[in-house]
Amino acid sequence: MPKIVDHLERKSNIAEATWRVIIQQGIQAATVRKIAAEAGVSLGALRHYFSTQHELLLFAMNLVKERVTARILAIIHTDLPPREQVAKVLLELLPTDDGSMAEMEVWFAFTFHLRSAGDKSAELDDAIYPLIVRLIDYLDQHGLLKQGLDKGDEAERLYALVDGLAMHAMLEPERLDRQRMVRVLNVHLESICCG
Amino acid sequence: MPKIVDHLERKSNIAEATWRVIIQQGIQAATVRKIAAEAGVSLGALRHYFSTQHELLLFAMNLVKERVTARILAIIHTDLPPREQVAKVLLELLPTDDGSMAEMEVWFAFTFHLRSAGDKSAELDDAIYPLIVRLIDYLDQHGLLKQGLDKGDEAERLYALVDGLAMHAMLEPERLDRQRMVRVLNVHLESICCG
Repeated sequence: MPKIVDHLERKSNIAEATWRVIIQQGIQAATVRKIAAEAGVSLGALRHYFSTQHELLLFAMNLVKERVTARILAIIHTDLPPREQVAKVLLELLPTDDGSMAEMEVWFAFTFHLRSAGDKSAELDDAIYPLIVRLIDYLDQHGLLKQGLDKGDEAERLYALVDGLAMHAMLEPERLDRQRMVRVLNVHLESICCG
Repeated sequence: MPKIVDHLERKSNIAEATWRVIIQQGIQAATVRKIAAEAGVSLGALRHYFSTQHELLLFAMNLVKERVTARILAIIHTDLPPREQVAKVLLELLPTDDGSMAEMEVWFAFTFHLRSAGDKSAELDDAIYPLIVRLIDYLDQHGLLKQGLDKGDEAERLYALVDGLAMHAMLEPERLDRQRMVRVLNVHLESICCG
């Protein structure tokens, strides 16, 4: 299916061009015209793949999700001990290098752009909360969660911690670098895990 | 000084009109023209107080900070036991009612608007981090912080937790309501405090 593959690749290239425009110039500058120029395609070619700017932004955002999900699945399929798996998965949700910082910029720009554009129905639908719920369950199933903890509370707390760290690392990358994020995450896991 | 008071009051009224426009229509719609209409003043009168839109947005944002700070100072000057004071101060940093939800909307809109407008130098300067550092110190000085905890790590963790909860409550107000935020905060304080 060379044609389908080709189409997907072109759409991904356009999505990546979208990220670059968002990161360099802000989401308000991410017009189809600028994105087409950045991707090196004509406006007509871009419109062939994405009929509206909204459709393009949505695709670009979903590609972020797909890449994060793929990395997380790769970790889950390793033979690492459960707690190390959980720690690695959580790190994937944080901006720890240029690539994931770019993803995070796109994610925040997208989420708050939709809201600041007045779209209150733009629900946060990034599947992170259900993932965190499953991670807490996973620790519990392996007998690693300290006794007496409420799983619902712990999922909410871990979810807030991870997204708070992500936001702060994006806004204050010099203060909150990768090493410090890893450290704080480990302090937290230490506090909820036994053994 | 009736004139000065009058000026301050007018500026505050314009700032509050700015909040309403941001909350209802998004920060991108917050033009001086719309804000003047919402405040019920002429464009000329508005320009008398704020010569640029940026100046107006900055004033509106600073008024949010001032109000939060005033509420926090009021708590600190009560006779509540230290741990209860800390819990109450932390709650002031979360969107627990319509008023504080509006403040949070403005804060997030402002922070991410500046970034998405490409202003990477728009540092997060909301004085929350130093406040959290002081709260952890305060607990420690009163012998309430569990032994063996690193104060720097705990400040970072609490800071991320609070801002993560604030962001989630804003994006998912139905799932994460006031009761649930109070509960998760208390679980966290319980985990770091002794006695």
